[in-house]
Order: sequence, then C-alpha cells, then structure tokens
Amino acid sequence: MNEVREKKIPIPASDHPRLIVIGGGFAGVKLIKKLSKQPLQIVLFDRNNYHTFQPLLYQVATAGLEPDSIADPLRKQLEPVSNFFFRMAEVYSIQYKEKYITTEIGDMSYDYLVIATGSKTNYFGNESIMSHAFPLKQIPQALDLRSHILQNFEEANITTDQSKLESMMNLTIVGGGPTGVEVAGALGELKTNILPSDYPELDFGKMNITLLEGTDRLLAAMSPFASKKALKYLKKFDVDVKLSTLVTSYDGKVAKLNNGGEIKTSTLIWAAGVQGNYPDGLEDDMIERGRIKVDAYNMIEGAENVYAIGDIALMKNDSSYPKGHPMLAPVAIQQGTNLAANIKRSLQGKTLKEFKYNDKGSMATIGRNKAVVDMGKIRLGGFFAWLIWMFVHLISIIGFRNRLIVFSNWVWNYFTYDKGTRLIIRKFIPRNKIKE
Amino acid sequence: MNEVREKKIPIPASDHPRLIVIGGGFAGVKLIKKLSKQPLQIVLFDRNNYHTFQPLLYQVATAGLEPDSIADPLRKQLEPVSNFFFRMAEVYSIQYKEKYITTEIGDMSYDYLVIATGSKTNYFGNESIMSHAFPLKQIPQALDLRSHILQNFEEANITTDQSKLESMMNLTIVGGGPTGVEVAGALGELKTNILPSDYPELDFGKMNITLLEGTDRLLAAMSPFASKKALKYLKKFDVDVKLSTLVTSYDGKVAKLNNGGEIKTSTLIWAAGVQGNYPDGLEDDMIERGRIKVDAYNMIEGAENVYAIGDIALMKNDSSYPKGHPMLAPVAIQQGTNLAANIKRSLQGKTLKEFKYNDKGSMATIGRNKAVVDMGKIRLGGFFAWLIWMFVHLISIIGFRNRLIVFSNWVWNYFTYDKGTRLIIRKFIPRNKIKE
Repeated sequence: MNEVREKKIPIPASDHPRLIVIGGGFAGVKLIKKLSKQPLQIVLFDRNNYHTFQPLLYQVATAGLEPDSIADPLRKQLEPVSNFFFRMAEVYSIQYKEKYITTEIGDMSYDYLVIATGSKTNYFGNESIMSHAFPLKQIPQALDLRSHILQNFEEANITTDQSKLESMMNLTIVGGGPTGVEVAGALGELKTNILPSDYPELDFGKMNITLLEGTDRLLAAMSPFASKKALKYLKKFDVDVKLSTLVTSYDGKVAKLNNGGEIKTSTLIWAAGVQGNYPDGLEDDMIERGRIKVDAYNMIEGAENVYAIGDIALMKNDSSYPKGHPMLAPVAIQQGTNLAANIKRSLQGKTLKEFKYNDKGSMATIGRNKAVVDMGKIRLGGFFAWLIWMFVHLISIIGFRNRLIVFSNWVWNYFTYDKGTRLIIRKFIPRNKIKE
Repeated sequence: MNEVREKKIPIPASDHPRLIVIGGGFAGVKLIKKLSKQPLQIVLFDRNNYHTFQPLLYQVATAGLEPDSIADPLRKQLEPVSNFFFRMAEVYSIQYKEKYITTEIGDMSYDYLVIATGSKTNYFGNESIMSHAFPLKQIPQALDLRSHILQNFEEANITTDQSKLESMMNLTIVGGGPTGVEVAGALGELKTNILPSDYPELDFGKMNITLLEGTDRLLAAMSPFASKKALKYLKKFDVDVKLSTLVTSYDGKVAKLNNGGEIKTSTLIWAAGVQGNYPDGLEDDMIERGRIKVDAYNMIEGAENVYAIGDIALMKNDSSYPKGHPMLAPVAIQQGTNLAANIKRSLQGKTLKEFKYNDKGSMATIGRNKAVVDMGKIRLGGFFAWLIWMFVHLISIIGFRNRLIVFSNWVWNYFTYDKGTRLIIRKFIPRNKIKE
C-alpha cells in the first residue's frame, strides 16, 4: 500500500504501535495527556499549532480578552508526553481499510486512529447566511468579528446615510444557546459601558441588540429556571430577545424573519448551530446527522482500531441521551479520558469500560455579575452563579500563563467597567469584497 | 474651495479653531493630551484605531508578548480631551494653500495642522529585499513575522530537502541598531530556551542567527562601551554578528552580501533603516532626506500653521544634531510637549519657545538579564541595565491594563524560561503567493 501513496510524512522510527490523533481540542488533548507514559508513538495532527479554549471565544469577539490568552501552543502543552510528535496540517481523508490518513503535508499510516475533529458552524444549507453572517468557532473568526464591530461604529460615526446608519447601529445574534446568550450579554455591556464614551457623536438610544431564538426559550439545554433568568438578565443589558423566531435569509444589510418581519442589521452573528467536522473517507452509514456513529467504547463499527471522541462522536448507548451526548467540552474531556483508559486496558489485555457521561451541570454567563448555573438539582442565578462561572472557566483554561492573563483582564474589566482590547489589529474585509 | 472637494467628513460645528493632527504615535498623542483644555476643536486622524508602543514590537514578533498589550485604543486614551474627535482613515494629501486635507473618507479643512506621521521601513530602493524581507514597524508585521518563524520550523521539521532545511534553520537580521540587536537577542533566547524542546526532531546545533551591520559597530548611536557590551552579550546568546557587511539582494532563500559571500536563509528581518512617511501635497523643497524640514518651533516654512513633529520632522537648529534629531520616541514626546506649549502660547498671544532636545540617554536590551544603558556620562551593561530597561519600558507603556499584562508576561517568561505566545493565529502567506 505504501507504493500508491505520493509522499510519506517523515517521522522517527519506533518499536511501539502508532496512535494518530486528529484534532487538538478538549478531547484530543486530554486523551494524549492520559496516554503520556504508554508504549505508543503518538502523533497529533491539527491545522493550528494551538489549542483553543472555545468557551471564552465570545470574549475575544467582544473586546474583553486578548486572543493569545485563550490559545495555548500544542507543542508546549504536550511536551511532557513521551514519544509524542506534532504535525501542523489539515487532514484530508481517512483510508481506514489500508490504515492510513492523507493530509496536506503527505500521508501517514497508523495502528490506532482517534478522530477528535470537533464541530464547525452549521448554516443548515442557507447560502445567504453563510456568505454574510459571522460565525464564532475559531480565534480568527472572533478577531474578524471584533474588527467588524469596531469598523462598523467608525463608519456609523461619519455616515450621512440614515438607512445605513440604522443597519450599522443594530447588532443581531441568532441562536439562544450558551454562545448566543453570552455574546448578546457581552454586547449589551459594550453598549452600556463602553461605546457611548468611545463614540459620543452617536446616539446609542438608537442601538438595538437583538437575540433571535428558534424555540420558545433560551438555553434550551438548561433548566426552565435558567432560561427565565437568562431572559431577565438580558433585558437588563438592553438586549431584545425574540423567541420562536428564525432568520430565513440575510444579505449583509437586512435579515428576513420567518414571521414576515425583518431587521436592518449590518452585523449578524450566527450561533444557531454546529455540525460535525470530519475528514473524507468514511462510509455514509458511519455518519448520522453530521456526526460519526460510535459504540459505547467510542469505536467506529466497521473501521478497525478507529475511534471518534468529542463533538464529532455520536454515541447512542445511553438512554438519557437518545440522540447522542450534547456537543460540550465536558463530554469531550470525559470521552478523551475514558478512551485513554480503554487503550491502556487493551494494551494490557484487560476488558474495556463503557463510556458513561457524568453531567456535572451546565452554566452560562450573561454579563457583569450575572450568570445561570444548573448543578444536579441546584439552580442558581445572579452574582453567586457568576462567581462560580468565573472560577470554573479560570481553572479550566490550560496553561498558568493564560490563567494569569485572563484573570488580570477580568479584574481590570470589572473594576474599571472598561474593555481594553477594542483594537482593529487587522481590518475585516467582507468575503465578497476579497479579490480572488 | 469647498466646491472642488468631493466629500466633506461630517464633524460637529465648533466656535473654536480646528487643529487636525495626523498620526496617533508618541508625538501626536502627547500633543493632544497637553492641549486637553484649550479652546480648540482637535481632530486626530490615524489609519489604525490604536496607538502602538513600538519599542516592544520585537517582543510580539518573538512570541514574548501579546499584540494586544502593546496597543491601546486611541479613542479610550484621548477620551478625557474636550472637544476631541477621532477619525480612522488614511490621509492622502495636504492642501496647505487652501488649508484642508484629503483622506480615504473625505476632506476636512483646518486652522492648524500637525503632521505626526512617523516613519516607515526604508529598503533604500532595493526591490528584491522589499519583496521578501520582513519589516518590523507595525503590529500586523510583527504578527506576520511570528507566524512565519513558527511555520518555518513546522516545515523544517518535516522537510527531506537538505538545502531547504539549511535555509529554514537560519534567521538573519539586517541592521545593528536597537531593533536589530533586540530582535537578534530575543531570537537567541528562543534558540536557547524554547525551540529545542518544541522541535526535538531538529538539530539546533545547525541553527544560525546572524546579525548584519553595515558600519563597524553595533548601536552606532550609543557609546562605544554599549557597542562592545552588546556584541559580547549577543555572542552569549549564540548570535553571529557580522560588522561592515551589507545585503545586496535577497530572493527569499539566499541573501547576497557586499563582500561576495552569501547566507542561505528563509527569514530576513529588515531593521536597517527607516524613512519619513508623509502624505502628498508638500513642495519638494520642504522635504530633505525623506523628512519634513521644520524650524526651531516645528513649523514648516511656507505652509501657514502647518507643523511637523516626531520622526517625520527634520529640525537642524541644534548644532549637536546637524542632520536632525534621532528618530526616537523621546524626541517625539518632547516635540509634542513643546509644540502643545507653543500652540497655547500663540492662543494667548505670547512668544514661542524654541525646541531643545533633552537627551536623557538611550538603551537597548539584548535578552534575559542583559541590556546596555547610556545616561549622560554613565555607561551601564548587564543585569542592572536590564532592570532599568524593563522599568523604563514598563512605565512608558500607555494604559495601566497594558502595563499589567506586559508585566505578568515578563514575570512568567522570566521565571519559566518560557514564551507563551508562540501561536500562529493567522498563517503568514508570502506576498508573492497572495492571489491578486
């Protein structure tokens, strides 16, 4: 089979079986760390050289945090792992029958393969939204959004076109899940505390932040208590929430709604859905609703020694999650841990352990002093929930340097009511204006 | 004259005369702050919405600092100034006879105009160097260099082409002034402390960092003591310094030298010269060696109420500086201060005060624990000089948030021997590979 391949990626020889991991997100990183001392050669592929702490991406987009403090270099993070190699490259396809992968830098064969490629934005096939809306899954996207919002106000500040002004003063967020709620709250804070003094020439009474949600409540995955509180807090931050409302099309200026209404808005943030993000090469029957079907051990049926973990994996063995687990960091981390333990067990000839998700709760912050937390039967809202949210996120960030910088920024933002990173480091150029 | 203009930039009416400042660097920002309470309408134009703390740019390029911590939003910084307006736009030309400027967003007339546009990289007309070398004057350039260096090692790590490997393992810096010395030292630190553990597959014994300087000593503007120490310290960081050596051409792979030699290097950092960066519209005889000629009051002869301050201004009244003042932050800050005082005096009908540069000394850091400082007749080198360098730079950074973040990073870097921002947030694409 080596003959048919164009180019093999150089890698030191090893007596140990080779485990390839695709994706350095929560699942992949946890798995590799847990396999630190095993008789394996581990090779991680990621298109970036860093791990992204996605739960705080929205703060980069809203000028609260530096991009660099939610990113951690993968090489540094995984340096302690013995016999570990990193390759920065996009993976094109999985040749599971011949046990190798193809990538932008060549091919590599494996003994074990773990797909941990996570999820990407789902536009549900709507081309107009895909062309003009702002997704929020990667750091460059967050920076583009930050630049766009600031450029937008610079332009609003000098426009004499009233209709243009109206659409520039409106920010619209689609999707009432944690990301949508958190972005909306952070924008509400910007509107209240920052923008009026930065742009004294503009009338912020005319600025509308609108959050659209297709179902009849926010944070549908959380308790009704959390939904109710989130709605209340968002109102305090002057966010207009429209439930049971969908966007049907968007041309960069006007968003058309399913109820026949429309919103003039030059910013549409799309947080309405994610989908699996897997390489080519798997069979159609291995995929369900964009995710890779796995058994209770995260194995893909029909593909020997190939596993999927995290957002990309669809596991339906647990009757509490008949449609698979939620696409959340804790699931990814726990699957990484469980699969690492199973790989150890199988190297030792022991029997494997089924994955069982331990739901420790979920939370979302809405802005200054306001968050909602569900933990088991406990429901919290307000300042105490906000402290818990901050604490959990701070300790979850990988890398002490990042923790220090994030903490410093938060302390600064809190006491000064300021957000220091409202910088247009690189100007955002709309995709339809980039020369090809 | 209004009739001939295409578009006027909207601005609130004011009874006060309008002062336009072009450029939010050290000179422009200082001037505006000092004119905070004057009966003037002040309008600042800058193509970016932030002030750049240029002395630390090299730390962004070498993964020591976040870009956001050496940038501070201009609107935030100048918020306390009354009757102040910011316009993010590139200024195209100065119509000094009709007293207005043209910009990318339209035209605006002035009563007083201050040109504080600073300097840009000077390639001395060498097209091959301009196409392939990395300049280091702006934050996006520093980020491009950071991405390039890291991408370069990712690629070196997997290449099987020995000649390519050699040129990828070499980093070359041209120009032995403060920027060149500081970059070379920081790269030396990366080579010693970071890269070998990040890329264990590469042989760093084969990595060469070369600093080329055209004259016969480093830091030519400083004391011979400083030059000697800098040379010694750079050797400690494994930097090969070649004096009296110029680059004659560079194709992205090989740099040809004036002594007939050549260096295989896929990275050439160009810190060999700067030149004035002024808008169109001035007469040829107002310019000398790329800078705008001014009198002892920073006035441009022949252009009524037009001033130039900072790097862009060439003032030859001081016999200690027959070719004009050095293009340094302290000169810019002092000229901003003096011109602000003169504008106040002229508003009050008082006589003006000539500018006199108070040289408080100069300094450069070479890396961990090593710097050189000239202060009056005092010459310092080593650890104590390094502490002074850190202290002076820390207190000079505008914005307490930035100070806090820079300080946190420095403490972290110092005690861990780590540099946490080795991130390729956006991939660098060589200019000749960008589709137009």
